[in-house]
Amino acid sequence: MPKRPGDAPMTYAAAGVDIDAQDRALAEVKRLARATFTRGVLSEIGGFGGLFTLEPDNPAGTVLVASADGVGTKLKVAQMAGVHDTVGADLVNHCVNDILVQGARPLFFLDYLATGRLEPGVAVQVVAGLARACSANGCALLGGETAEMPGFYAPGEYDLAGFIVGAVRRDRMLRRGAVQAGDALVALPSDGLHTNGYSLVRKVFFEALGLAVGAEVPELGRTVAGELLRVHRSYLPAVAPLLDAGLIRSAAHITGGGIPDNLPRALPEGLGGEIDLGSWDEPAVFRLIRRAGQVPDDDMRRTFNLGVGMILIVADEHLGVVLGRLVPHGPAWLIGRVVAGAGVRFVGGSR
Amino acid sequence: MPKRPGDAPMTYAAAGVDIDAQDRALAEVKRLARATFTRGVLSEIGGFGGLFTLEPDNPAGTVLVASADGVGTKLKVAQMAGVHDTVGADLVNHCVNDILVQGARPLFFLDYLATGRLEPGVAVQVVAGLARACSANGCALLGGETAEMPGFYAPGEYDLAGFIVGAVRRDRMLRRGAVQAGDALVALPSDGLHTNGYSLVRKVFFEALGLAVGAEVPELGRTVAGELLRVHRSYLPAVAPLLDAGLIRSAAHITGGGIPDNLPRALPEGLGGEIDLGSWDEPAVFRLIRRAGQVPDDDMRRTFNLGVGMILIVADEHLGVVLGRLVPHGPAWLIGRVVAGAGVRFVGGSR
Repeated sequence: MPKRPGDAPMTYAAAGVDIDAQDRALAEVKRLARATFTRGVLSEIGGFGGLFTLEPDNPAGTVLVASADGVGTKLKVAQMAGVHDTVGADLVNHCVNDILVQGARPLFFLDYLATGRLEPGVAVQVVAGLARACSANGCALLGGETAEMPGFYAPGEYDLAGFIVGAVRRDRMLRRGAVQAGDALVALPSDGLHTNGYSLVRKVFFEALGLAVGAEVPELGRTVAGELLRVHRSYLPAVAPLLDAGLIRSAAHITGGGIPDNLPRALPEGLGGEIDLGSWDEPAVFRLIRRAGQVPDDDMRRTFNLGVGMILIVADEHLGVVLGRLVPHGPAWLIGRVVAGAGVRFVGGSR
Repeated sequence: MPKRPGDAPMTYAAAGVDIDAQDRALAEVKRLARATFTRGVLSEIGGFGGLFTLEPDNPAGTVLVASADGVGTKLKVAQMAGVHDTVGADLVNHCVNDILVQGARPLFFLDYLATGRLEPGVAVQVVAGLARACSANGCALLGGETAEMPGFYAPGEYDLAGFIVGAVRRDRMLRRGAVQAGDALVALPSDGLHTNGYSLVRKVFFEALGLAVGAEVPELGRTVAGELLRVHRSYLPAVAPLLDAGLIRSAAHITGGGIPDNLPRALPEGLGGEIDLGSWDEPAVFRLIRRAGQVPDDDMRRTFNLGVGMILIVADEHLGVVLGRLVPHGPAWLIGRVVAGAGVRFVGGSR
């Protein structure tokens, strides 16, 4: 889309998030963390969750997979709309997916809810969302911390973070080293934005488009809040049977950084992904954001899931049975292949 | 201390924290959480951390003990002082203590660091504090989430939460059911305020006393920041050998709510604690807060640790050896006994 003079395109960096500065700090943070590693840490494998075993000498021992996450500024939309019982489900499902891509099933979850002054009704709604999603994922909501921090959060605002622990038998873990060139990339649809890119999304909807949170958006067939608060989907029901059957080599949860940042985390050195942009249905919300925010294609791809919430990496001989078993869980798309070379290459469209 | 007319005493509720409203919401939150419990949850035992086992039928199986916590408004003091490498240690040690009182040793820790705009230097200092304390406790810093949330936190501010998982053999867990009337209450000293009561503390130091964060306080022999940022002590080195030797029946980590709220969590129904107020050295900071804030005794006791960071509950026949083994770790005080009846009764002073 051509830029209009004087009308700066909206990118994630312009919206206030400096991904490069974040990356540099994260590298130093990782170095500090690595220095604390004990014998139980299976640090040879980088990935979406931390790996720890109580049986470091047992090749078939239980591995605990742990992940921490927040909801990000999607919380602002929930707080604007006064809807507090969905963000907990976003958080639980996000965490479930983060350990699922390592082959783990959830065991338990703990939350951290921080606010200036606790509104008991709001806290209970937030936890109701957590509990509903925990039950749906067979995950115990084992505990949490509700912190009242006067003067720290603006009235009506709160932050919400979560921690999940799951388990997988060590010889059943997904390992990116198993991936081979030619493997199929099978995408599972997202339910819209999930929980990433909301600083940019809010600028587009509330500044560029000047919409109220309750406004109907005909192009979306929903209100702004209805679209922006759609719940991050859990892929556990669709993917668990495939894990049981050993039909998946690796998997990537598509979150912040989009496909270009997340797919490579599921691939070994020297292999990348070639993705056909015309191979899946992009939800209308992404077209609206691209147009209304004049967001360049590369920023769209590095900020949003664009309709792909998870990518499964499947050996070609299992592709048919995998697609067949996914049918009861809704659409699944063959969006590309693993190829030689690093990174992700998009072909076949201008999306 | 007599009240002066027109000069309201400072209590925790007046400082903006409504502990009763928090308690009611927490009760509903617990009900929602309980509905998610799966077979691995050892929910018969209430306590400081959540309990989960992968071997529900093994009476000597490994129990995972998990806890989530934040630093609270002690963070404000760190941010005022520009000191970012101690709050991480506060958080880790707090979490270590929370699972230690169930008999567990730490395995791994994850953090959640949220800020408006990431200042990479600050993030690295925060994580350096986490990593230092993790190493000291033999705990792996397994992962975490660093969230940049523009427009959510004020410039220079951040929130920090943590999540710990430890392990204990099921037949070695501390259980409050083991406690008997007549058992000794052995106190381990706190290093000052630890991480509780900071909304009130900040009012006293910065409003009632009108001090700057860098001001020297002769009565304390330290600056305001030097006192208020003293690091929450880990009791793992002192207590682990006692756990190994089976010398402790139960234990309480004295955090928000003070001795009256936390000691009963380590005692069975029908038993309480009788505590001799003259039996330990109260650090000067608590005397200063009581006087400068005109804080009533009951509020002091229900807000602060008053110098007691942990209470070990010890059978009388083991008291001598326990006190002896604690000598290399610094002072330990026999502060009272377990008695019939609920709650905590203070005797022997007006503290």
